[in-house]
Amino acid sequence: MTKIESRVDSEIDILTSQLQQLIRVPSVSAKKQLTVIQCAKLVSEIMTNAGIKSELLKLDDNSEQIPPLVYGEVRSKSNPNGKTILFYNHYDVQPPEPIELWDDDPFSGKIDGNFIFGRGASDDKGELITRIKAVEYFLKEVGDVPCNVKFLIEGEEEIGSSHLEEYLTKYREKFRCDAVIWEFGNVDEHERPIISLGMKGLLCVELNVMCANTDLHSSWAVLVENPAWRLVHALKTIRDENGTIIIKNWYDDIRDFSPEELECIKQEDFDISNFKKNYGLSNVFNENDIDKVKKAHVGGVTSNISGLFSGYVNEGSKTVLPSTAMAKLDFRLVPDMLPQKQFQLLREHLDKNGFKDIELKFLSGEPACRIPLNNEFVKLVEMCAIEEYGKVVKSISSAGTGPMWYFNKILECPCVSIGCTYKYSRIHSPNEFARIDLIKKTTKCIGNIMEKFGKSKEDN
Amino acid sequence: MTKIESRVDSEIDILTSQLQQLIRVPSVSAKKQLTVIQCAKLVSEIMTNAGIKSELLKLDDNSEQIPPLVYGEVRSKSNPNGKTILFYNHYDVQPPEPIELWDDDPFSGKIDGNFIFGRGASDDKGELITRIKAVEYFLKEVGDVPCNVKFLIEGEEEIGSSHLEEYLTKYREKFRCDAVIWEFGNVDEHERPIISLGMKGLLCVELNVMCANTDLHSSWAVLVENPAWRLVHALKTIRDENGTIIIKNWYDDIRDFSPEELECIKQEDFDISNFKKNYGLSNVFNENDIDKVKKAHVGGVTSNISGLFSGYVNEGSKTVLPSTAMAKLDFRLVPDMLPQKQFQLLREHLDKNGFKDIELKFLSGEPACRIPLNNEFVKLVEMCAIEEYGKVVKSISSAGTGPMWYFNKILECPCVSIGCTYKYSRIHSPNEFARIDLIKKTTKCIGNIMEKFGKSKEDN
Repeated sequence: MTKIESRVDSEIDILTSQLQQLIRVPSVSAKKQLTVIQCAKLVSEIMTNAGIKSELLKLDDNSEQIPPLVYGEVRSKSNPNGKTILFYNHYDVQPPEPIELWDDDPFSGKIDGNFIFGRGASDDKGELITRIKAVEYFLKEVGDVPCNVKFLIEGEEEIGSSHLEEYLTKYREKFRCDAVIWEFGNVDEHERPIISLGMKGLLCVELNVMCANTDLHSSWAVLVENPAWRLVHALKTIRDENGTIIIKNWYDDIRDFSPEELECIKQEDFDISNFKKNYGLSNVFNENDIDKVKKAHVGGVTSNISGLFSGYVNEGSKTVLPSTAMAKLDFRLVPDMLPQKQFQLLREHLDKNGFKDIELKFLSGEPACRIPLNNEFVKLVEMCAIEEYGKVVKSISSAGTGPMWYFNKILECPCVSIGCTYKYSRIHSPNEFARIDLIKKTTKCIGNIMEKFGKSKEDN
Repeated sequence: MTKIESRVDSEIDILTSQLQQLIRVPSVSAKKQLTVIQCAKLVSEIMTNAGIKSELLKLDDNSEQIPPLVYGEVRSKSNPNGKTILFYNHYDVQPPEPIELWDDDPFSGKIDGNFIFGRGASDDKGELITRIKAVEYFLKEVGDVPCNVKFLIEGEEEIGSSHLEEYLTKYREKFRCDAVIWEFGNVDEHERPIISLGMKGLLCVELNVMCANTDLHSSWAVLVENPAWRLVHALKTIRDENGTIIIKNWYDDIRDFSPEELECIKQEDFDISNFKKNYGLSNVFNENDIDKVKKAHVGGVTSNISGLFSGYVNEGSKTVLPSTAMAKLDFRLVPDMLPQKQFQLLREHLDKNGFKDIELKFLSGEPACRIPLNNEFVKLVEMCAIEEYGKVVKSISSAGTGPMWYFNKILECPCVSIGCTYKYSRIHSPNEFARIDLIKKTTKCIGNIMEKFGKSKEDN
């Protein structure tokens, strides 16, 4: 066991108490809470205490509305001209709603045995602390880091990283690096870390229908169109009952899987029965065709209703004809679909189907990205993960979305996901948790990656 | 001007302050608020002060959950064996939501010139006060009432009068009467009171869809069915885009209009352009065929979505695959449709269309009712209304729903609507109001009806 690994084990209580500190500052970017900025300051403080030079970056002096980036940097004294690794993470979290389904306060940070609960426990405060601690333990045990280290910790990941492209463009030189460790990394039900090499894209929209200028007594439904019915009839033209999106040309820009990607997908596994059991599902799309299931997971596109609202939704009944109806939809995209273009297709689709009156808002959008399977940094991360976990899975893409496309395009370097987020840790859901054993393993693995990445320069 | 009429004018400030008192006790039956019972007590107190013998009636001693009936009675000293009129009203109100659309507190009772604002201002506390005051003024001016008077004031009208049939059956002797003045009465845009002789029926249901046992990250939408999509696809099988209900046999039990009813419908008018202007409507169903519009108003059936909910509905976006989705629907019914039978048709429809998993709750139901146009009491009310308002409209049915069917069946007497509710007074909507001029006229008209009804016995 290395000195770094021993320190991870002996100081785990300090690590978890700092993670609790982070969880207890609610940083819901969707709600533009003031505590978002408070959380950025706390992250910077924890980094400074760890020996990492840290500052808050802004887009311009007037951008009070935009959460700052937390920047961090440590130059290697023994290897100053060596390679630079950049840790990308985020300090913002998803909204905790529905709050009534949490067993405790969503921001409690309660520890119960191997579990630490709270919004952000895994996504992404848990991951973030593993990166900070790996660097801190090097500095405290060895007095140096084996490679140059940078941190980019943003506050808008959960709302589509709205300003990340701008930040990356503005601070391109500051963030220059040779490889990026991505903000998350899943661990599957067989305790294998998943090295994920891509992200799906995302388009989030909101549909609003308005019929009358006020809620009406529902007896008027004989004469007045109901906006909720109008919404239902508009929605049904978007996706059929089998999940297929029936908007013209929707699938046109999808890039086919390469032979290497197909082989990688084949090597992955997916335990359908365990998945169904965990989430109480009676069925899963195409569950009798495991190849289809696996392809959908890493390369399928969706139309998901994330929110629906109209009229009276409390106890009992209210005989009201609502004035308005609203739906929020998110569409997962894959290479080479572009959010703005898909948004345009949706608008044209609504217009052509007689729904010109429906307001369509663009909430956020990100393109998809995939890193080539044969990249050298991918191989290095894979080796380190095998040393720590014994086994590993490679995946051509996460099923989720992140701003990998911008990193890849602007910093021109590979991005690889490796982390401590247990597959069933309920990220984005009530009772989100992190597993402390996985936090320990990942902190050790990150240390190992830094070590090997520093040497990889020397070897060249 | 009679003594009663003068008193209405001179004591209008006391009347409106008592109406304010009533509005200020929120009595939302849908929410089972404790203030519902407080409101029943206040009504009883106001009646006692008016000289009306009053008591609260219960179904049984253990029925704390069921709002009491407020009973009231005054026997005529000069005409004790004469006819008995029963005033049916309700002290409960619709929920005030959406509260943010009210200009003031929904329970303020704020007076602004000729208007008094608040939930229940018109429906039904405004109507109720006109009946109480007409009786009070007779007692105070004449020392007697011209006919026997009874009051039945319930607390569950806005939730489908769930226990009224039981109450009427249990207290059938107590409520025995010769005619019923119904709880509401509209006044149209030409200042004409509408004598309404029927009520539509209503079936309120709730649909619940559950897919996973918890909210999921929306990336799982590639594999897991979304309950909101499932709800959309179920709903679209219920009603088409033109408003036609496409459930098999739904229209089977509808009774045809009689020739007299068709003639009455022809006599009614409906100002479509005024209606559209008032509610900011761009169109109205069948607006180019005024006969269809008028028939729909008094005799059309509907399927109305009164509530829709799933997932995240606050600001911004949350990439969640919701665990559940819910819709509340109300269906207006006409003679001779029965709610339980229509509910069964809906359940069978969902089952046959592959939606057996969707939970369907029966929230409430009431059958429709129509009183014959040639009834003697109808003619008497018409005469009194003409004397007060100068003009009058007869309608074979209200577009709304009430428990007239039970009164007609159990008490075996006619029910006629006459009242002070201005057509655009926003009942069931934000900023509900009552017009004080109409409250005065209706109080006078009710006095006139009592006078003539008392005499009608003597004349026979």
